[in-house]
Amino acid sequence: MPVGTLGAIKGLDIGRVRETGAEMVLSNTYHLALRPGASVVAELGGLHRFMGWDGPILTDSGGFQIFSLAQQTKISEQGAIFRSHIDGSRLEWTPERAIEIQEQLGSDVAMVLDHVVALPNDPQTIRDAMDRSVRWAERCRQAAKRADQALFAIIQGGLDADLRIECAERLTAMDFAGYAVGGLSVGETPEEMYRTLHVTVPALPADRPRYLMGVGRPEDLLEAVARGIDMFDCVMPTRNGRNALAFTDEGPRRLRNLRYERDPRPLDENCPCPACQHSRAYLRHLFIAREMLGPVLLSAHNLTYYQRLLAEARRAIMEDRFVEFHRAKRRKWQAGDPGEKG
Amino acid sequence: MPVGTLGAIKGLDIGRVRETGAEMVLSNTYHLALRPGASVVAELGGLHRFMGWDGPILTDSGGFQIFSLAQQTKISEQGAIFRSHIDGSRLEWTPERAIEIQEQLGSDVAMVLDHVVALPNDPQTIRDAMDRSVRWAERCRQAAKRADQALFAIIQGGLDADLRIECAERLTAMDFAGYAVGGLSVGETPEEMYRTLHVTVPALPADRPRYLMGVGRPEDLLEAVARGIDMFDCVMPTRNGRNALAFTDEGPRRLRNLRYERDPRPLDENCPCPACQHSRAYLRHLFIAREMLGPVLLSAHNLTYYQRLLAEARRAIMEDRFVEFHRAKRRKWQAGDPGEKG
Repeated sequence: MPVGTLGAIKGLDIGRVRETGAEMVLSNTYHLALRPGASVVAELGGLHRFMGWDGPILTDSGGFQIFSLAQQTKISEQGAIFRSHIDGSRLEWTPERAIEIQEQLGSDVAMVLDHVVALPNDPQTIRDAMDRSVRWAERCRQAAKRADQALFAIIQGGLDADLRIECAERLTAMDFAGYAVGGLSVGETPEEMYRTLHVTVPALPADRPRYLMGVGRPEDLLEAVARGIDMFDCVMPTRNGRNALAFTDEGPRRLRNLRYERDPRPLDENCPCPACQHSRAYLRHLFIAREMLGPVLLSAHNLTYYQRLLAEARRAIMEDRFVEFHRAKRRKWQAGDPGEKG
Repeated sequence: MPVGTLGAIKGLDIGRVRETGAEMVLSNTYHLALRPGASVVAELGGLHRFMGWDGPILTDSGGFQIFSLAQQTKISEQGAIFRSHIDGSRLEWTPERAIEIQEQLGSDVAMVLDHVVALPNDPQTIRDAMDRSVRWAERCRQAAKRADQALFAIIQGGLDADLRIECAERLTAMDFAGYAVGGLSVGETPEEMYRTLHVTVPALPADRPRYLMGVGRPEDLLEAVARGIDMFDCVMPTRNGRNALAFTDEGPRRLRNLRYERDPRPLDENCPCPACQHSRAYLRHLFIAREMLGPVLLSAHNLTYYQRLLAEARRAIMEDRFVEFHRAKRRKWQAGDPGEKG
C-alpha cells in the first residue's frame, strides 16, 4: 500500500497512483485527525471521496505516530495523552477514540490502537506494552460499529518469540478480520526482524490477511513474503524517491551521482512508469536543479517498482517457484551495478 | 505555451502537460545553458527527447533572464557580460552564442537576443536598447544555420509608439518567421501594455505568428488577442498554482481561504483536469498541510484553464463572435464570486 499520510500520496495525483498498479492505499488517522479533522472528511463524504480513490483504504490507528511524532506523551491504561506535533495542542487518544475517528474517515480496514515501544527495550516495558495492546485491541473490538469496516489486530511483543506468540494467540482468540505485525522497523536489525516474523507469522491464521506494518526495503518485503506476510505499507518508495534514490533490480541508484550526467538510458527499460520515459540524465538534472518533477517522477517509479515486485512474487507463489524467484532477485540486488558503488 | 524553465513544467510529468491541451511549450535557454548545459542536452538527443515532448518547443534567447536574473550585468555592442545567478561564474552572452545554444538545444522556434530594459525608463535608454536589439536581431539572423529551426524577432521600444513602429518595420524588413512583442510586463500598467500592443501589432505582418512574451493574466490574454496576438507564454498559471491561486471563470480563487474548508464543489465542474476531480476542501487541505500534491494539481488546473480559454477564443474568432465572447468573459471575471472578495 502506498502511504497517503494526509489523504494524498505525496506528489502523485490519484490517477498516477492507480497507474503504479496499487490496489489499496493507506492513510494515517493521527495526521488526518489533526488536519483537516475527521469531521471535515466525514462531512465531505468520507476518505474515499476526499482522496478520489475508489479502491480499498486502510487507516492505521495512530499508535505509531503517538510513539514517533507526538510530544510529551503519557500512556495510561485509559489511553495516550500528548501534544500535537503541529501546534502543541493537548490531545487524548483512546482505543474507542481511534475507532470512532476511523469510522468517521470510513476506511475499509481499520486498525486497533496499539502501544508501540522502541527497540531495544527492557523486557518488562515490552511485556507491559504487549499486554496493554491486547487489552486495547479488545476495547477496539467492542467499540467498532461499522459493519462495512474490517478491523485488524496488531501483534506486539518486541523481539521476544514467546511474547509474540502469546500476543498472537490471545488476539487470534478474539477473531479479528486480519492480523498485523507491529512494533518492527523501530531500531532492530533486519535479521532480528526476520527472526521475529519467522516465529510470529505461523501463530496467525493462514486464512486471514497477515500485514507487516511500516516495512521496508525491497529485500525486506521478499524476506517477509517468504515468512508468510501478505500485506505491506511503507513510506520508503515515496520518501526515498523524493530524495533521488531509485529502486531497481540492480539495487538502489542515487540519481544525483555525476555518473548519470550524460546517461541516456532509462532507469529500467521494462518499467511502464512516467520516470522511465526519460533518461537517467534527465532525472539527475531535475534533482540537481531542484525541480519538483524529480520527486514526482521518482515517487511514481519507486511505487511502480514495489508493485511490480510484489506482483512478480505473487505470480511466483502461484506457480510454486517463489524460492527460485527470491534467490534470483536477491542475487541481482546484491550484485548491483558496480559503478553505483564506486 | 506552458513554461518549462529547466526542461520541465514544474511538478507535471509530460503526459499531464499534454492533457492540459497544450500544443507547444517554452523552455529557457539561459537556464538550460547553466543547468545541465546545452552540450549535455545536445548529447542526449536534443530538448525534445530530453523533456519527452514530441510537440513544438520554443526557446527564448536569454535576453529577459540577463535583464531580470543575472548579476553585475554589463551590456556592450558585442553582447552581455554577467555573473550566473547560480554560482556567480562569469558568462558572456552574444547574439551568436544565443543562436548557437538554441541550435544545440534543437528547439523548433528560436528567439533572437534582445536588450530588455525596465519601464519606466528614460527615452534615450529605451531608444538605445531598441536600436541594439535590431542590430542583434540581424546578427542572429546571420548566425542561424539550422534549416529546421524557425527564428522569431523581438520588437522593443518601451511604451513609445513611434519607437515600437520603427522597430517593427526594421525587423519586418529582415523577414523573420515570426515576431514577438518583448519588453512588456516589466513595470508598466496593463493599460499601457494594451496601448502599446494596439500600435505595435498592426505594424507586424498578419501572415506570421505574433507572440506576446511573458504575459499574463487571463484578462491580459484576451485583451492581447483582441489586438491581434497569436501566441503567449507565461509562468503565471504554474507559479500562481504553486501558491494556491486558481484561475476560474469567476476570477481567481485563493484556496487557502477558510471559506473552502468544507466546500464539496470542484473548482469548475466542466474542467477535465485532475484537480477538478476533487473538492475545493481537499485542494485547500493539501495547501494547508503543505502537501506537494497541491501545487501539482493546481498547476495542472491553471494550465488547463489557460488552454481552454484560448481554445474558446479561437473558436469565437472562427465564428466571428470574439467581441461578444470577450465581453461575456470580462463580465464574469469582474463580477467574480462575492465571497472570494469578502
